[in-house]
Amino acid sequence: MNAVATAPERDLLAVTLAQTLAREHIADIVETLNDQDEDTVAAVLLALPFDRAVEVLDQPELAAASEALALLPEARAAQFLSAMAADRVTDVVREFDEPLRLRMLGRVDHETRATLNRLLTYPEQSAGSIMTTEFVSVPADWTVSRTLDYVRHVERTRETIYAIYVLDPAAGTLLRAVSLRRLISAEPQALVVSAAPDRAPISVTPDIDREDVARLISKYDLLAVPVVDGADHVIGIVTVDDVIDAMIAETTEDVQKLGGMEALDEPYNEISFARMIRKRAGWLSILLVGEMLTASVMQHFEGELEKAIVLTLFIPLIMSSGGNSGSQATSLLIRALALREIRLGDWWRVALREIPTGLTLGAILGAIGIVRVVVWQKLGLYDYGEHWPLIAATIGAALVGIVTFGSLTGSMLPFILKRLGFDPASASAPFVATLVDVTGLVIYFGVAATILGGTLL
Amino acid sequence: MNAVATAPERDLLAVTLAQTLAREHIADIVETLNDQDEDTVAAVLLALPFDRAVEVLDQPELAAASEALALLPEARAAQFLSAMAADRVTDVVREFDEPLRLRMLGRVDHETRATLNRLLTYPEQSAGSIMTTEFVSVPADWTVSRTLDYVRHVERTRETIYAIYVLDPAAGTLLRAVSLRRLISAEPQALVVSAAPDRAPISVTPDIDREDVARLISKYDLLAVPVVDGADHVIGIVTVDDVIDAMIAETTEDVQKLGGMEALDEPYNEISFARMIRKRAGWLSILLVGEMLTASVMQHFEGELEKAIVLTLFIPLIMSSGGNSGSQATSLLIRALALREIRLGDWWRVALREIPTGLTLGAILGAIGIVRVVVWQKLGLYDYGEHWPLIAATIGAALVGIVTFGSLTGSMLPFILKRLGFDPASASAPFVATLVDVTGLVIYFGVAATILGGTLL
Repeated sequence: MNAVATAPERDLLAVTLAQTLAREHIADIVETLNDQDEDTVAAVLLALPFDRAVEVLDQPELAAASEALALLPEARAAQFLSAMAADRVTDVVREFDEPLRLRMLGRVDHETRATLNRLLTYPEQSAGSIMTTEFVSVPADWTVSRTLDYVRHVERTRETIYAIYVLDPAAGTLLRAVSLRRLISAEPQALVVSAAPDRAPISVTPDIDREDVARLISKYDLLAVPVVDGADHVIGIVTVDDVIDAMIAETTEDVQKLGGMEALDEPYNEISFARMIRKRAGWLSILLVGEMLTASVMQHFEGELEKAIVLTLFIPLIMSSGGNSGSQATSLLIRALALREIRLGDWWRVALREIPTGLTLGAILGAIGIVRVVVWQKLGLYDYGEHWPLIAATIGAALVGIVTFGSLTGSMLPFILKRLGFDPASASAPFVATLVDVTGLVIYFGVAATILGGTLL
Repeated sequence: MNAVATAPERDLLAVTLAQTLAREHIADIVETLNDQDEDTVAAVLLALPFDRAVEVLDQPELAAASEALALLPEARAAQFLSAMAADRVTDVVREFDEPLRLRMLGRVDHETRATLNRLLTYPEQSAGSIMTTEFVSVPADWTVSRTLDYVRHVERTRETIYAIYVLDPAAGTLLRAVSLRRLISAEPQALVVSAAPDRAPISVTPDIDREDVARLISKYDLLAVPVVDGADHVIGIVTVDDVIDAMIAETTEDVQKLGGMEALDEPYNEISFARMIRKRAGWLSILLVGEMLTASVMQHFEGELEKAIVLTLFIPLIMSSGGNSGSQATSLLIRALALREIRLGDWWRVALREIPTGLTLGAILGAIGIVRVVVWQKLGLYDYGEHWPLIAATIGAALVGIVTFGSLTGSMLPFILKRLGFDPASASAPFVATLVDVTGLVIYFGVAATILGGTLL
């Protein structure tokens, strides 16, 4: 319990808050509540009118919903859960600890329990776990006007009424989908099925990933997509609201992974110190161990290093260029694969493109590197010794090699990860940099040995 | 012109394609057309029924819309443009070259021209540039039933009818927004304004960024948000479809920037070689020049390096750990700022959090680094000399310092960029790594001088 205020103080605060909030937009209430501790949230839920409290709990943005419900009297919490939207109640109940979840399943109403028992079986982040069971479906032999009457009647208990699913009257299988806008402009006495577009509706199975649902909704500009079981019965729908939330969560995950860490799954300012360390330390340690290979490579070339200490000066510069070009290529390909612009089988096409790209980029960087050595030498800022033109050539050639290698490695890594069944977005910039660093050193010393052999080395 | 097929072959292909496509889902037609060259797209547009062709052109996913329209007879192109959705026609016309744009503006119908002249003045990626002018608004003194009749009447020409805007009958200013679902369940003889929720609707001005529109739509679970001018007149709406497209484009941009390059603004497999090089070479060159400071730092410590060549072995390992921890912190803060979990004024709170986090992560990595030196020494894999315990201590202490510095720098960079008016997402992993590398070397040599002074140095 966060002891920010004493209990009576908190109750007073809660009642005042509840009065002020009662007329605000639901999203603003949620924002205010997210700044309060969970005891205050629980107290406000009790002080708000019941319907308003349910509305608040139905917002996926409410951070402390599970925690606040766990603090309420169980009978009251069960009333809230029974009144909440099916998809949201599943999310909330999922976060209860096992004993509380079982007790609440025993207390909620029959219908909610049945829905929960079904929805809780779907894996997190699947269509089944984000779908709601509150949709509108009608048999194909109903008229448009009967359908509209029915829609008016059930409107308050459905998450969306803008997509109406038309079922086979006998088998109950999904035949057509019709939008409310087509329905209200259709002939009232016509059959509802005649108002629907003449093709099988886009649908998904409950096990597919929420990212793929988002792609479908975005591609076909849908307001909702039906989720069907093996027998083609509609068991729920995923709405565009759920998809937007899922897309934002997905982007956060991808950006965090690209930064070289596990996805936090919690807001930055709410995650505990211990969890933050766990999410970050894993990859940092793995990358450090990987990077230790560079020390081994350097040991291997220690003789060269002692003979030409000048070579060490450019190690950070050359290695980072390899990492940077790899990081560019990786982020490009992660997005291209995510957007399905490019498929797994296109890897060789990408490789054929990245090699000339890498060579060109390497030539540009190589030229800059050569200019740097020449300018420093000529201006007397540093003396690279009598063989300075050869050193300049070494830097230039090494940059061409390393940038090409970096671009190729960085672009192929997402394909390899996807092929192995991992998320291509796990190919973080630091991961690519580490991969490229080791080989980059070998390329650098190899080029140096070729160009400087017989003079400096 | 992509000479993939001869003209008669292409026409035959186009007619066949058009026949096959006529009954498919619009999004699938677009996908098929995106695999064709622009001449074929133009030919298919001519072969499809007019309404169907307009529907295809209305899809923002159609890549070659501008190019294909430019290939058509201008009178025909003008007919298409006049029939297309206002927001989409603006995007397409924006891509025409100047002379063609002016000629087409002269040929389209009066209404389209007026809309275009207005929409083209808004900056790209603003609410004004992605909004459509095809929305439904009614005066507040209409009844629900009159409003519904009107909605049925205009349905075919509006992008969405699910949000209806209620205007002051005299001033024409925005009073309320009402959803179609509330309208169809309302009392037909009641005033439309009485069916609307009793609060001012969420609205935006045309100059705000599409990202902020997306945030509002997602926060308030809207299907559309009205765009109002200074006098509170509705001049357009941004729909949830447009926002999803904008969000996907925004994510792509962010991921590409985070990878250390300019956003491509085109699919990977469609961008020309020259443009690809331009988008990537800029940042690579800037980073290379920045990284040249490391060579200067190394020159400065050349004396130390010559005395203790063993120090060079760990340079890549230590520098990369700083870059990796910085990259983690940057990606965390970019997302936290984008999601408004954290505001600009919270920078000191973040700093106070990242310092202990960095120290802890540094201690973990430092311990791994020390173990590495001890194990290699004891197993005889490498001889670090008589002072090997001091070298191990140097590696450990340097990692603590560098990881802490990396975490702090990486977390502050997005704040600094935002404060300076740049996109925080420009703080790429390579950018942070470069910043941290230079200071990292100074920390490393500083720690080495302290610990090894009097023995190795």
